[in-house]
Amino acid sequence: MTLRDHIYDMGRRGREAARQLGILPPEKKTAILRAMAEGLRAETPALIEANAKDLEAALAKGLSSAMIDRLTLNEKRISAMAQGVAEVADLPDPVGKVLAEWTRPNGITITKVRVPIGVIGIIYESRPNVTADAAVLCLMSGNATLLRGGSEAFHSNMAIAAVLQKAGQSAELPDDSIQLIPSIDRESVRHMAEMNQYLDLIIPRGGKGLIETVISLARMPVIKHNDGICHVYVDEAADLDMAVRIILNSKTQKPGVCNAAETLLVHEDIAPAFYAKAIPGLRAAGVELRGDPALCALFPDVTPATAEDWSTEYLDLILSARSVRGMDEAMNHIARYGSRHSDCIVTEDAQAAGRFLSEVDSAAVFWNASTRFNDGGEFGFGCEIGISTDKLHARGPMGLPELTTYKYLVRGTGQIRV
Amino acid sequence: MTLRDHIYDMGRRGREAARQLGILPPEKKTAILRAMAEGLRAETPALIEANAKDLEAALAKGLSSAMIDRLTLNEKRISAMAQGVAEVADLPDPVGKVLAEWTRPNGITITKVRVPIGVIGIIYESRPNVTADAAVLCLMSGNATLLRGGSEAFHSNMAIAAVLQKAGQSAELPDDSIQLIPSIDRESVRHMAEMNQYLDLIIPRGGKGLIETVISLARMPVIKHNDGICHVYVDEAADLDMAVRIILNSKTQKPGVCNAAETLLVHEDIAPAFYAKAIPGLRAAGVELRGDPALCALFPDVTPATAEDWSTEYLDLILSARSVRGMDEAMNHIARYGSRHSDCIVTEDAQAAGRFLSEVDSAAVFWNASTRFNDGGEFGFGCEIGISTDKLHARGPMGLPELTTYKYLVRGTGQIRV
Repeated sequence: MTLRDHIYDMGRRGREAARQLGILPPEKKTAILRAMAEGLRAETPALIEANAKDLEAALAKGLSSAMIDRLTLNEKRISAMAQGVAEVADLPDPVGKVLAEWTRPNGITITKVRVPIGVIGIIYESRPNVTADAAVLCLMSGNATLLRGGSEAFHSNMAIAAVLQKAGQSAELPDDSIQLIPSIDRESVRHMAEMNQYLDLIIPRGGKGLIETVISLARMPVIKHNDGICHVYVDEAADLDMAVRIILNSKTQKPGVCNAAETLLVHEDIAPAFYAKAIPGLRAAGVELRGDPALCALFPDVTPATAEDWSTEYLDLILSARSVRGMDEAMNHIARYGSRHSDCIVTEDAQAAGRFLSEVDSAAVFWNASTRFNDGGEFGFGCEIGISTDKLHARGPMGLPELTTYKYLVRGTGQIRV
Repeated sequence: MTLRDHIYDMGRRGREAARQLGILPPEKKTAILRAMAEGLRAETPALIEANAKDLEAALAKGLSSAMIDRLTLNEKRISAMAQGVAEVADLPDPVGKVLAEWTRPNGITITKVRVPIGVIGIIYESRPNVTADAAVLCLMSGNATLLRGGSEAFHSNMAIAAVLQKAGQSAELPDDSIQLIPSIDRESVRHMAEMNQYLDLIIPRGGKGLIETVISLARMPVIKHNDGICHVYVDEAADLDMAVRIILNSKTQKPGVCNAAETLLVHEDIAPAFYAKAIPGLRAAGVELRGDPALCALFPDVTPATAEDWSTEYLDLILSARSVRGMDEAMNHIARYGSRHSDCIVTEDAQAAGRFLSEVDSAAVFWNASTRFNDGGEFGFGCEIGISTDKLHARGPMGLPELTTYKYLVRGTGQIRV
């Protein structure tokens, strides 16, 4: 069987599994996930052993220490993975929820009800824990998954998938609910992306190169978790101390993530006063500043920002900063350079805040709060598969309901159309 | 300027227009749409004149009379187009609706609010009235449109777009809110499909070839209005007279549309009795039957169905029919051959109906009602841009809310993440 045939066969089997998963009662899904959490704990030694093969190959290939750290499984991380699975097991089942219901003049009743999406393809890189995270979030929302992990985590991913499948079987999980492509051939990404008769959705989790490949090839919907070029705009009516706390938190609390701020916009009237308060703290936190001429004039040791800086997601302790003549210029900057992820205004002026919230077209728009709150956990979703930077289907943090769709149930008593 | 540059420039301008459209108050949109309806009425002679050029070319090219009919504009059709625009003007504005709101333990308030999608590309064939229909539905939901009509309706489409733009200007519509690509070059489809920095969504309305091209090329989300291979399953516990009315209506009330039934599935225990009641009426309505061996044995003059029949959308007075051993076989048939559009069970058995409604994965699943009700008007949406056969973002009839997305507004008092 060719790789293509093998993947299409997995797709077909995933479709069959999805039909059964779609009608699995919540208590059954909870039991399956609990068994999986137990399985991961019980099989810790086997998982560490499989991971060792990947680590050995990674060292031989000379991967960076950051990459090797991301790849590493140890008791603590496996326990955290199992804990994550157990927490999803306790979340409310989104499937079957009635979203709307109405009766038409002819007497037919229409019910709009949440249903699983079907079969979800997930293509990811590096961290092996995604194998468990993604599979169980999809499973709890009634979806079958076809997983394709990174080549460097191949043995770890296979071992995790095997544990989940075995634990699932013991709790009557339908066969083929969770499938991992047992190949590191890059062509498997193409086959998945083209297989729109079997995959209802594809989610790429990884770098720009992977996302670009998937967008170009995919024949089914794609939900991307893309760059966050997030802005904090300090308005003329800002509480400057609050603004300092917010930019410091947005930039430095965890700089390597998508909801961290990358650019600071400051109303020119308060720029000198604000910079005087903010810059010492940012520097003390190790932040390198890249400034416009106005900032560089005030602080001559700030590196001048280039055109490229405004569209760069640093994911690091670097912050670009510029002053603006007012909120319109700030919003124009955000529209031009932002990635529609998380943008914030700090102001005491409710009217200005209202305009900013209304006119900035981002997944989450913040007024006087850190951009770091754009997160499934912080939103109270209990989990997230990622933060969608797409506008369709799901935007912002994706929890279990965002992994579902809906259908209409129409009940009649023999009505026909005239 | 090359065609590509021209289309990208239109995309960029559409993006600017969308920023203004997104915050246009409902009464302004209503006024704009009313002005457009008036404009279409007032410019009827000019529209008929432009249409005459297309009709002349169509005759010279030898297009079929059905094609020419679809292409033709006359006073009555222009009046209906204007009426349609005026009706959309009176629909409730979906933008700004609060979908959910909650406060987190740290005091931040999260509001999930409906917002426009942004810029929508619509690629369509043949009927010039789509120019007005699609543009005003998108406009009322706050979206800018980039339209690309079929070459055979080029002059009609240009004239309609010009009328809408002129009437819009008089009512302060932002420039570039409605743009029509002034070229019949097929490459324009490719440029639109690749331009994901400016188009948030692309909707192809047309035949399989167009849809296939768009799916293959598109780098942004696509919502398809695809085939409807719709089934009526007559259960062993069906009221046979009701079942006759429903299959007759589903098949013959308007056979050329996507929610018409194409396949009849009959429980084998009641098949002889049901066929005896149903077939005379179907034949009287001019329906040609393609049957399985069981049906052909009962009615030897029925054409035997081939494997291809089960996956064919006839869009005509043809019906494939077979008996099944029970509901599972019916649901397996639907899962295998259906297009997840509209499927119906006729039964008096509420438990069987419950299983069918739950397990059949179609945009609309019917119990004792005609499949022809899967329609925006019949659902009470007041309008529709089409019936989505996709599962993501919008499924089934798409009205104004389905042309929107959401964003989160997060209001704090200086909260930071710890």
